[in-house]
Amino acid sequence: MMETRRSLPRLALTAGRADPGQRMLPEEVAVALSYNGSTQAVMMASPEALEDFAYGFSLTEGLATAAEIDSVEAVETERGIDLQIWLKPEAGARLMARRRTMAGPVGCGLCGIDSLEEALREAPAVPTSALRVSLDDVGAAISALTAHQPLHDVTRAVHAAGFWTPEAGIVAAREDVGRHNALDKLAGALLRGGVDASRGAVLLTSRVSIDMVQKCARIGAPVLIAVSAPTAHAVRMAEAAGITLIGLARPDRCEVFTHSHRITVDEAEDVA
Amino acid sequence: MMETRRSLPRLALTAGRADPGQRMLPEEVAVALSYNGSTQAVMMASPEALEDFAYGFSLTEGLATAAEIDSVEAVETERGIDLQIWLKPEAGARLMARRRTMAGPVGCGLCGIDSLEEALREAPAVPTSALRVSLDDVGAAISALTAHQPLHDVTRAVHAAGFWTPEAGIVAAREDVGRHNALDKLAGALLRGGVDASRGAVLLTSRVSIDMVQKCARIGAPVLIAVSAPTAHAVRMAEAAGITLIGLARPDRCEVFTHSHRITVDEAEDVA
Repeated sequence: MMETRRSLPRLALTAGRADPGQRMLPEEVAVALSYNGSTQAVMMASPEALEDFAYGFSLTEGLATAAEIDSVEAVETERGIDLQIWLKPEAGARLMARRRTMAGPVGCGLCGIDSLEEALREAPAVPTSALRVSLDDVGAAISALTAHQPLHDVTRAVHAAGFWTPEAGIVAAREDVGRHNALDKLAGALLRGGVDASRGAVLLTSRVSIDMVQKCARIGAPVLIAVSAPTAHAVRMAEAAGITLIGLARPDRCEVFTHSHRITVDEAEDVA
Repeated sequence: MMETRRSLPRLALTAGRADPGQRMLPEEVAVALSYNGSTQAVMMASPEALEDFAYGFSLTEGLATAAEIDSVEAVETERGIDLQIWLKPEAGARLMARRRTMAGPVGCGLCGIDSLEEALREAPAVPTSALRVSLDDVGAAISALTAHQPLHDVTRAVHAAGFWTPEAGIVAAREDVGRHNALDKLAGALLRGGVDASRGAVLLTSRVSIDMVQKCARIGAPVLIAVSAPTAHAVRMAEAAGITLIGLARPDRCEVFTHSHRITVDEAEDVA
């Protein structure tokens, strides 16, 4: 397995001084996601949890469900990792048919997307869920996530995505130099672990753009809690998908942008 | 022109309280970059400085130089913005030929990139530059950038890229919900303004991944100063491209990862 981090020399400048030393930085590797031998996307990613990445990306980009994946193999090459995903016959044929309908050899900025329509594809509505969360829950979840970020602990420079339930706390967490990749790896971990996503909340250390809401909807999680702010478009998409979108989450406060019926307000507390 | 921000309702949760109110959030719009009528990439972006975006993306992705662009028009559609870039005949023919050599209707994760090779394409070496920067310069540049972030001022949730010279301070700055887009818009602003990029430093509020170094090399800026940390791969690419990469920049300190010959250390100062 390739290294996820590397200690590199650096010169630390402070007033009147230049001190040589080392800093631990996250590694970043080109990962080609290929389906039945054809490359679908190339992502710069942290080289870990690649099987989760394969399953999660397939789900959140609407390419294949876990049941449709026959096998996954991460092949290291000189230039990066070829993440080979082999689909069962029916799914493979469907993906081939979808590719033939694409306009031509065009590029994209969004994982194989070649049009405005596809970029703005509606997120599926999340399944009905009895989940309710309080401010204490949000604070506990965000605080607990920090104990599941080993790569961030040593580099202070990668994103994390986690899944939290009221019963079990942090069920899974994954890190990556890219926020989308971290979420896709989490999606794969949940799928492979047989976790029912309707029973908990997705946690993100990052900003929330519409593609993050789209992925969360594909996962089927009813609540999305992020440390940073959402875009206005992401709020509209969460509204449409039935997701409770919580942003600017801190241990003692947060802001709820959509579907606040899932929020329970604690009994008035003494402000000591 | 579409709005770059929007005030949306939110519920602010603090201990025992849920206060309704509003928060200003950045807008996010799908922008299709099309060349001679064919879509090359679709980006989620802040809907401003789109002509800069067209020129900058064309340059930093190696698609066309400013001289090869005949016209740019941003057409608003129901689903987003169609940013139509029309190339002069020779450049148009070259892009068509390049598209024909692509393997097929594949997708990508990096702006039209369909292979590991292309993702890791070498950055061009930056031109020789007499630029030297001190810690005071880095601090002054990073501090000055904050006065050029009007969208961030009201949303606290977008990235900025700026260009700084010792003579003029901040020459140009652009903002976007996406860090790559902010840098591309800056590249376009420099091109269109006839700014010689070899005479100054690119400033970024974001992390530095290899694609940011690739873009900076295409711009021809010898110094890249970022508030956040680089990846290890970005450091190697900056080393190869001859770029002085400075990370973790604050008003009073920073870390230099490559080509420190461009750094001048100030005379010892009184630590008051």
